[in-house]
Amino acid sequence: MSGALAGVTVLDLGRVVAGAYCGMLLADMGATVIKVEAPHLGDDTRGFGPYVDGESAFYTHFNRNKKGITLNLKSKEGCDILCKLVENADILIENFRPGTMERFGVGYNRLHEINPKLVYGSVTGFGSNGPYRDRPGYDIIAQAMSGLISVTGVEDGTPVRAGTSFGDIMGGISLALGVVSAYVYAGKTGKGQFVDVSLTDSLLSALMIVSVYHLNGGVVPKPTGNRYLISAPYDSFHTADDDIVVACGNNKLFRQLTEVMGRPDLRDNPLFAQNETRKDNHLLLKRELEEWLSGMCAERAVDILLQGGIPAGRIQSIDQVVLDAHFSGAREMFPVIKTKKRKFRITANHIKMNETPTEEYQNAPALGEHTLELLSKLAGLNPEDIQALKQKDIV
Amino acid sequence: MSGALAGVTVLDLGRVVAGAYCGMLLADMGATVIKVEAPHLGDDTRGFGPYVDGESAFYTHFNRNKKGITLNLKSKEGCDILCKLVENADILIENFRPGTMERFGVGYNRLHEINPKLVYGSVTGFGSNGPYRDRPGYDIIAQAMSGLISVTGVEDGTPVRAGTSFGDIMGGISLALGVVSAYVYAGKTGKGQFVDVSLTDSLLSALMIVSVYHLNGGVVPKPTGNRYLISAPYDSFHTADDDIVVACGNNKLFRQLTEVMGRPDLRDNPLFAQNETRKDNHLLLKRELEEWLSGMCAERAVDILLQGGIPAGRIQSIDQVVLDAHFSGAREMFPVIKTKKRKFRITANHIKMNETPTEEYQNAPALGEHTLELLSKLAGLNPEDIQALKQKDIV
Repeated sequence: MSGALAGVTVLDLGRVVAGAYCGMLLADMGATVIKVEAPHLGDDTRGFGPYVDGESAFYTHFNRNKKGITLNLKSKEGCDILCKLVENADILIENFRPGTMERFGVGYNRLHEINPKLVYGSVTGFGSNGPYRDRPGYDIIAQAMSGLISVTGVEDGTPVRAGTSFGDIMGGISLALGVVSAYVYAGKTGKGQFVDVSLTDSLLSALMIVSVYHLNGGVVPKPTGNRYLISAPYDSFHTADDDIVVACGNNKLFRQLTEVMGRPDLRDNPLFAQNETRKDNHLLLKRELEEWLSGMCAERAVDILLQGGIPAGRIQSIDQVVLDAHFSGAREMFPVIKTKKRKFRITANHIKMNETPTEEYQNAPALGEHTLELLSKLAGLNPEDIQALKQKDIV
Repeated sequence: MSGALAGVTVLDLGRVVAGAYCGMLLADMGATVIKVEAPHLGDDTRGFGPYVDGESAFYTHFNRNKKGITLNLKSKEGCDILCKLVENADILIENFRPGTMERFGVGYNRLHEINPKLVYGSVTGFGSNGPYRDRPGYDIIAQAMSGLISVTGVEDGTPVRAGTSFGDIMGGISLALGVVSAYVYAGKTGKGQFVDVSLTDSLLSALMIVSVYHLNGGVVPKPTGNRYLISAPYDSFHTADDDIVVACGNNKLFRQLTEVMGRPDLRDNPLFAQNETRKDNHLLLKRELEEWLSGMCAERAVDILLQGGIPAGRIQSIDQVVLDAHFSGAREMFPVIKTKKRKFRITANHIKMNETPTEEYQNAPALGEHTLELLSKLAGLNPEDIQALKQKDIV
């Protein structure tokens, strides 16, 4: 067996980011993930740039290590084939709007009857029930409605979204955790189930400040720039060139910091002696720290701080990250997929395992690449049947 | 059985956020999660506000549904007891810096020898190898060094962090997915393994723009406010009162939008006809849209857009989110834990399952609350032994 999830068969009806990312995580861990796309059209992201020799980097990234078949779910014959596949599948994931699979005729109830052990995972904007259930759920809408935008940005400035699609990403990885956990349960009890994840709920889980500071402290958190509410100094700071971040999470670290700065007076100053008072006087403290940092460049500042045991780091741009020997070298985070035409670089599986590592990355499937192979093997169709279905635009 | 992970025993040496969030997700899904804390001290977050009747809301949130024991891992006897517990555990998770567990004398190799089926999960700032391995890894440092800060913020403005601890959260949920997947593998093969997750790698996985736009498109992404690089109009917009977000992900939606606006001229304008040209002219388009929106308030604008089939939503503040009937009511995202003293409100398990729902939330353990019960049951100690260990500060 190769991969922690080797032997697990997943039907991946996921599209664009959330569903496709879920399937990607499972495929990276060795599951047999069969991406199911509409004939001729395929996943929308096949049409998203940037393109490399005519192939979408976007699509390739999220669909590496998967097999691909086409199936027209708007036709009865297409749905019947999906039902055949479900007989032999462990997990099905999809990110259509609630009710779409029922409209096709392959809703959870029908599939559960066909295979009671099937784990059926759905990721949507707002989940399968409630007043917003039918609303379209794009990432920006989840970031806006969950409150994430309202707490991101410069202090007193315009609130902004987080710079990547955390709604989609958190939704996708949450669905992956849900379906694998439900697969554990199905293995022990024979009972499959419906796993219902939404982008917005997933962001609410990430926004623990809601539960911690608002529900129990009454505060309405607002953007605080790079500063955190818990501790000080825990923020970004100017140096002679670039900004850096410093994270003094407790009193001991702060005392060490005053030693590194050669400023025992700050340690002894009642304004800064305890975390609670430091938080109240964070602006004064920032001024002191930035005065000290103004005499050195970011690289040197981080070195000095780390040598003194103070958590610190540079604010890296994406091109710096990709060249960083730690991420690119030691952690192998930007591996290469060899395709027929050229090499794609992707972001690796970030869940590293010593017994079942992700050893190589296979190219994403061309549209319908494995239709013939997999419909023969898993749905009992012969090549002539498949050819006929193709002519009717069913596969 | 109750909960998808019922019957799975987890030793949770996680502290603060990343490790504790991982354990929380597993406990919410029914695993028996035993939080292991240092005698007298406990998890740092027991000392984090806000407090409700002397109990930390922070600690309670991340440690609900867990059992709690104390164990001094700096003593040989404490480590020997941990080894006894490991004999009967399925999963161990920890977020000490690399090398700490080895220094205690309970590193992966020793525990793996004791229980070859054990899944051992570690979440750290930078992972278990590489030049940054020994650096302290707080959330802000992960956001800075992964590049997340460099792409978050107002266009041409100061880059800022995302408004919640996505490094910790993505690290914690990634470890949860990793250990459950490795548990599946251990169940089939009898082989446990080391699962190695870092906050920074987890953010790199979330930052798919690295792989998509930089590695394959050569672009160095920068903050773009609420605008996304993929489509236009996909951004926030002013109305007569609050800002709203609109997400036109494709040409069809844009044509619908021009109908809702009563502006067929925009549809026919070559500047806006295709997504690629709309992206280039997003500022011009924003001006047109905001002129139209200036005549209505945010609530009405969202209603009109949704009725016209256009994805749109309000930018909600945290107090609005908590009162939102969809999240608070239908999705039950802010349930109550009853403690001896009062009611805490928390953010719920966001992974909803129909067969094994999370039906209630138990209070987080008091420091060492289950030491007597669990060390008797799982480590074969009698009450007198445990009393003696307590006097030596070992439990």
